[in-house]
Amino acid sequence: MKKLNVGMIGGGFMGKAHSLAYAGMPMFFWPAPAIPHRHTVVDVTEELAKDAAARLGFDNYSTDWREVINNPEIDIIDIVTPNNTHAEIAIAAAKAGKHIICEKPLALGAEQAKEMLEAVKASGVKHAVAFNYRRTPAVALAKKYIEEGRIGKILSFRGTYLQDWSADPNSPLSWRFQKKIAGSGALGDIGTHVVDFARYLVGEITDVNAMTKTWISERPVQTGGIDKLGTVKNGGEDVVKASVDVDDEVITMVKFENGAMGTIEATRNAWGRNNFLTFEIHGEKGSLAFNYERRDELQVCFADDPSDAKGFRTVYTGPATPYGEGLWPIPALGIGYGETKIIETYDLFKAITEDTEFSPNFEDGYVIEKIADAILESAEKGQWVNLEKATVDVK
Amino acid sequence: MKKLNVGMIGGGFMGKAHSLAYAGMPMFFWPAPAIPHRHTVVDVTEELAKDAAARLGFDNYSTDWREVINNPEIDIIDIVTPNNTHAEIAIAAAKAGKHIICEKPLALGAEQAKEMLEAVKASGVKHAVAFNYRRTPAVALAKKYIEEGRIGKILSFRGTYLQDWSADPNSPLSWRFQKKIAGSGALGDIGTHVVDFARYLVGEITDVNAMTKTWISERPVQTGGIDKLGTVKNGGEDVVKASVDVDDEVITMVKFENGAMGTIEATRNAWGRNNFLTFEIHGEKGSLAFNYERRDELQVCFADDPSDAKGFRTVYTGPATPYGEGLWPIPALGIGYGETKIIETYDLFKAITEDTEFSPNFEDGYVIEKIADAILESAEKGQWVNLEKATVDVK
Amino acid sequence: MKKLNVGMIGGGFMGKAHSLAYAGMPMFFWPAPAIPHRHTVVDVTEELAKDAAARLGFDNYSTDWREVINNPEIDIIDIVTPNNTHAEIAIAAAKAGKHIICEKPLALGAEQAKEMLEAVKASGVKHAVAFNYRRTPAVALAKKYIEEGRIGKILSFRGTYLQDWSADPNSPLSWRFQKKIAGSGALGDIGTHVVDFARYLVGEITDVNAMTKTWISERPVQTGGIDKLGTVKNGGEDVVKASVDVDDEVITMVKFENGAMGTIEATRNAWGRNNFLTFEIHGEKGSLAFNYERRDELQVCFADDPSDAKGFRTVYTGPATPYGEGLWPIPALGIGYGETKIIETYDLFKAITEDTEFSPNFEDGYVIEKIADAILESAEKGQWVNLEKATVDVK
Amino acid sequence: MKKLNVGMIGGGFMGKAHSLAYAGMPMFFWPAPAIPHRHTVVDVTEELAKDAAARLGFDNYSTDWREVINNPEIDIIDIVTPNNTHAEIAIAAAKAGKHIICEKPLALGAEQAKEMLEAVKASGVKHAVAFNYRRTPAVALAKKYIEEGRIGKILSFRGTYLQDWSADPNSPLSWRFQKKIAGSGALGDIGTHVVDFARYLVGEITDVNAMTKTWISERPVQTGGIDKLGTVKNGGEDVVKASVDVDDEVITMVKFENGAMGTIEATRNAWGRNNFLTFEIHGEKGSLAFNYERRDELQVCFADDPSDAKGFRTVYTGPATPYGEGLWPIPALGIGYGETKIIETYDLFKAITEDTEFSPNFEDGYVIEKIADAILESAEKGQWVNLEKATVDVK
Repeated sequence: MKKLNVGMIGGGFMGKAHSLAYAGMPMFFWPAPAIPHRHTVVDVTEELAKDAAARLGFDNYSTDWREVINNPEIDIIDIVTPNNTHAEIAIAAAKAGKHIICEKPLALGAEQAKEMLEAVKASGVKHAVAFNYRRTPAVALAKKYIEEGRIGKILSFRGTYLQDWSADPNSPLSWRFQKKIAGSGALGDIGTHVVDFARYLVGEITDVNAMTKTWISERPVQTGGIDKLGTVKNGGEDVVKASVDVDDEVITMVKFENGAMGTIEATRNAWGRNNFLTFEIHGEKGSLAFNYERRDELQVCFADDPSDAKGFRTVYTGPATPYGEGLWPIPALGIGYGETKIIETYDLFKAITEDTEFSPNFEDGYVIEKIADAILESAEKGQWVNLEKATVDVK
Repeated sequence: MKKLNVGMIGGGFMGKAHSLAYAGMPMFFWPAPAIPHRHTVVDVTEELAKDAAARLGFDNYSTDWREVINNPEIDIIDIVTPNNTHAEIAIAAAKAGKHIICEKPLALGAEQAKEMLEAVKASGVKHAVAFNYRRTPAVALAKKYIEEGRIGKILSFRGTYLQDWSADPNSPLSWRFQKKIAGSGALGDIGTHVVDFARYLVGEITDVNAMTKTWISERPVQTGGIDKLGTVKNGGEDVVKASVDVDDEVITMVKFENGAMGTIEATRNAWGRNNFLTFEIHGEKGSLAFNYERRDELQVCFADDPSDAKGFRTVYTGPATPYGEGLWPIPALGIGYGETKIIETYDLFKAITEDTEFSPNFEDGYVIEKIADAILESAEKGQWVNLEKATVDVK
Repeated sequence: MKKLNVGMIGGGFMGKAHSLAYAGMPMFFWPAPAIPHRHTVVDVTEELAKDAAARLGFDNYSTDWREVINNPEIDIIDIVTPNNTHAEIAIAAAKAGKHIICEKPLALGAEQAKEMLEAVKASGVKHAVAFNYRRTPAVALAKKYIEEGRIGKILSFRGTYLQDWSADPNSPLSWRFQKKIAGSGALGDIGTHVVDFARYLVGEITDVNAMTKTWISERPVQTGGIDKLGTVKNGGEDVVKASVDVDDEVITMVKFENGAMGTIEATRNAWGRNNFLTFEIHGEKGSLAFNYERRDELQVCFADDPSDAKGFRTVYTGPATPYGEGLWPIPALGIGYGETKIIETYDLFKAITEDTEFSPNFEDGYVIEKIADAILESAEKGQWVNLEKATVDVK
Repeated sequence: MKKLNVGMIGGGFMGKAHSLAYAGMPMFFWPAPAIPHRHTVVDVTEELAKDAAARLGFDNYSTDWREVINNPEIDIIDIVTPNNTHAEIAIAAAKAGKHIICEKPLALGAEQAKEMLEAVKASGVKHAVAFNYRRTPAVALAKKYIEEGRIGKILSFRGTYLQDWSADPNSPLSWRFQKKIAGSGALGDIGTHVVDFARYLVGEITDVNAMTKTWISERPVQTGGIDKLGTVKNGGEDVVKASVDVDDEVITMVKFENGAMGTIEATRNAWGRNNFLTFEIHGEKGSLAFNYERRDELQVCFADDPSDAKGFRTVYTGPATPYGEGLWPIPALGIGYGETKIIETYDLFKAITEDTEFSPNFEDGYVIEKIADAILESAEKGQWVNLEKATVDVK
């Protein structure tokens, strides 16, 4: 069976998730499109890179991502580094003719994303952005219902992504709170997942009207090097603080090309919400509701159910729903974060071996950057911003 | 024990709810501030009025509301008629020196509401608007937490009111779909309850930015006289249809005087949502979540809970929470719609006998009308509308 | 319209619930079978009785229940006194030719219940036992599904009634903890509601096999006279304690005549459970689940739903479900404890005016006592007890 | 870093789960106790075995499990075959001095389990039974609360395991319905997981009193070789059926050594329940509730919470709860079935490298077999069966 060699740039939280997916994908989807081989992992120091290779099951390690990109044995470059490094790596990888999967958000803004898209278009490689949540089987099931017309024309979409890991003012100022590295705050970090849901399930967004807030204006400087997502507190008397220059919370109204309307909200300051990535969609013939915190379930209500037995059904995904052929043999054995990445890897490897387009790809990543830029512009100006059809102006 | 005579104008769904409250209030809150006496009920025909009196337990009936208003035996006028009649009746009742409770929304717009407020201010009577949902014990408990500082400074508010009784295009064109009678659609009918929650729990609203949609532009003309809320379908080959000129759905962003921000959404076209009146509030020290469909429960998360036992608590209201002294002796015996009205009646009678202000009163009703007007204006103009401090310009 | 005069014996928590139902029933169900007239209420002292009349809206009061029973104006005797007084009052009322509604459990045991049944059979009056929970619309909907064969032959039933008001060892020793007054503990007080559900929904019980426990063997003697259900604590240094001689918790396995099997559990020592009266029923063609704490909802799963949209539906009761013609016009406006009693009153008045049998009546109450006795016998002996077909041996 | 070579006997559903765990464990728990190396996988034919090796990432494959057991390179034998083969393989592996992890239930009955236990005791190897559900972080958190006394002395336990994959009479007669292969039905297959919860969380079981039912007495003979858990239907006109000789459903009452009491229920015929593995535990100071279908969450109620903020907390497991150091950095990123197996592997490898006892081991597996045997005996005899202290009589 064909094997594809992966060079992974970065060995943190996302590196772990992707590595599990490379190892597990063929166990779930068999015959696999190709076997992922963990060839080389890159981290910033020799020590970290060596450790990552041992931990994540890579055969080799390196501290020089350019070397890896140019290694002829490598088929796929997997970019799981902070946002500000995505563009440089991806463009170089494209030039080197490697297929690319890049963590989200794609770039620090639309301009940068456009360059990345141009690069992959020019080289003809496959390109993917890791908005993995849309691969939750329950979200794929929602897509199936919508495509089959089972909830009718969509009227409205409400999406949220609420977390609380930065609600504590003593949680450290990681790179996620610094504009030059992260691009934006809650918007780019988590809000873009909701934008991806909106585009995937409803359609193209044409206009946005937003508000943003930075609730905690300065945070303790992080002393350790690793992104701890706020779980390590750096408070105390003599802590050094620095400014936060990204949004803690964003709320936006959106209009869709097909006439639907909606709201998108994201915050990392919502006490008690952990990974509360939700949507509710109302259609002319039914409704859908999803909450990633209970990700095995999709709620669906069909308008034409008998009036004495109408109501939201709690459908547990499993063998009878999308990706069911590969996943666990009984619903609610349980989809975890790992499984969403396994599915993503499966679809990526299928796209590569079958030479089809992966979705979401850099085009989607670019459009999402345009939308994110428009959201920030709208919040600043206090008015609607039109996206001039937020699609791709790159051939 | 003191008795207060009620003259109730209207004998429909709301008349039933209020009548149950008059009968039941002293059973729950004892000693009662005063005993409500169902003196006279008014309906449009002799037959309807007579029937209403028998059904709702009134001693007398009438078809002439002016006569009832001027009856010196009557202490309180209860207005449970369609929205377009509120102003005339209330102003007359105020002039006649009667205390007034008026169903929501108070008026067809801010201008009319202002006149009503001026009238009650001039006469010195007690005035109440029946936003009863804030009297759900779980909502009162949320208010208590907030006032006691238990969730800290409020950052954001998200409120929705979703129903589905008009999602079917064949549900009849009742008065609720006609601007001249209802003033607005989902906004006035149900959205104003969310506005009431927002002001009650968070504070004054200063700016709004909205979208509205009329999803179903015409509906079958209703043949019967009674408001059936869409449960009677009038479809068929030869049905006569007429235009809907109010909103089916409204989405608005809001800014609060205290710096909080939020969204308010209301629709009657959300399949599967019945009386989905919800809020979620994030504060610096905790979060609250409420859904009227499960109205015995308030969800609260406290930031300072131990890290291995932190999460939303599902608190069932009962003897230990607001109004618990009067309600059922065990939590979850069950709060229904009736109980919310019983509490409202209790607070109204207390305000009258103790000569204090009832809240929400016509001032609140007026401010809510200003906000509703601003929401419609914002939706039309596609921009933020400032409320010039949405408080009362009536002395 | 016909009027039926009620004499109510007892003015406590249950008296309040019944009084609200008498006042409210015609407001919901119109034309009413007959108008309930609150004629006379009885309590133990003149002061209490007078107060009850004012509070509950009765025209008259008395301290002598025999006098009321023999008052020719009275049509219905409503018994809402502690369990040990039911038999004497009911038998006297039957002899006086009055229709009777008696709170549950019917008696202190099967023997006493049999005498009560014989009395009402002899006199030909209507007789009802107030297992009101089966009148929750969602429970009536479950019955409808079962009768229409929509979940097929029933395989198993699991019912629980969990509360926590007596989990605190300092909650007072009310009459509910004294065998001579209450008959039994959690079993009679709340477990019998589950037995009523089991018989109502599944069928006759033939065998039981039980365990009981008294977790808290002594409690503070109650100083006030009123049953406070544990919400008033009597703890402290010098508190006088006395023995509890009833069960705090009961678990029983049951076999049904139709081959189904199940469990019934009841406890008042389950921290965090308030009025957690639940059932889950599995049939050959579907399943049902209900939790009174969320009583507007019935969960139902149909086996023949499409495999990609199968799951429990959350059906909110309303206009399209049983009793919907009388209740609130939108689902989830809200069923409270009051509404269950209003429906019970409606069905009782219909039985009286239409001369049909009310269910559950004294036959059911007697059978439930037999089952309760068998449960206690089983727990004591540690073995299955057969009920020799737990039906009625009274002609 | 130390490496341990695994020989896995069996390549089906469970083989997949274990293989994912071997690959993923070091990614989560680092430094790992030792690196699992997938050395050899065994299946019944050369074709299946070769396929399994490629799919599951093993270096070698074999059709001869004895050969693998005797391979000196192998450190650990992993038994993921049907129940009737466990004993022979495990005893041979013990004699060969290999550490053993065996899928549950350990054996076809207590007698066989005893022999297995004797074998591992004699050889001194580490031994584990794969009751993986107790490694769900939320279950481990429940254990932590209990051990820290946070819910006080335990009064009662209610556990269920409900599935619906065999509710359809046309689901095939896999080995799971044949006594000679499976030992028992729902009891051994899933009920034993609940028994494991009961012993893990509450303590030793001393007495059982049970009922069992075989609802569907014959099923279509399975034509394919692979266990499809009922998802492939074999119905049709000319289907060949054969008898089911195991239980479809089991209900048992249990008594614990420490005075607690409870119920355990298991069925694979509960429409709409997928992997509904639940427990509810009431203690003197609090309560716990868990449902594996929502496995990221543990419900806990503390009796000493303030009376106006008391209720079940929904705690999402994550960095602050057991195993949080290794799992995902934010709660609700999501625990799936894979993660439970990764944790199990971690604890097994730790036990091996640190020379401590793994729990649950063959002693536990043996005790659970004794309990299962007692449950079947009780159901047959219709009476309580005492377990003579269900602990281990093997030195």
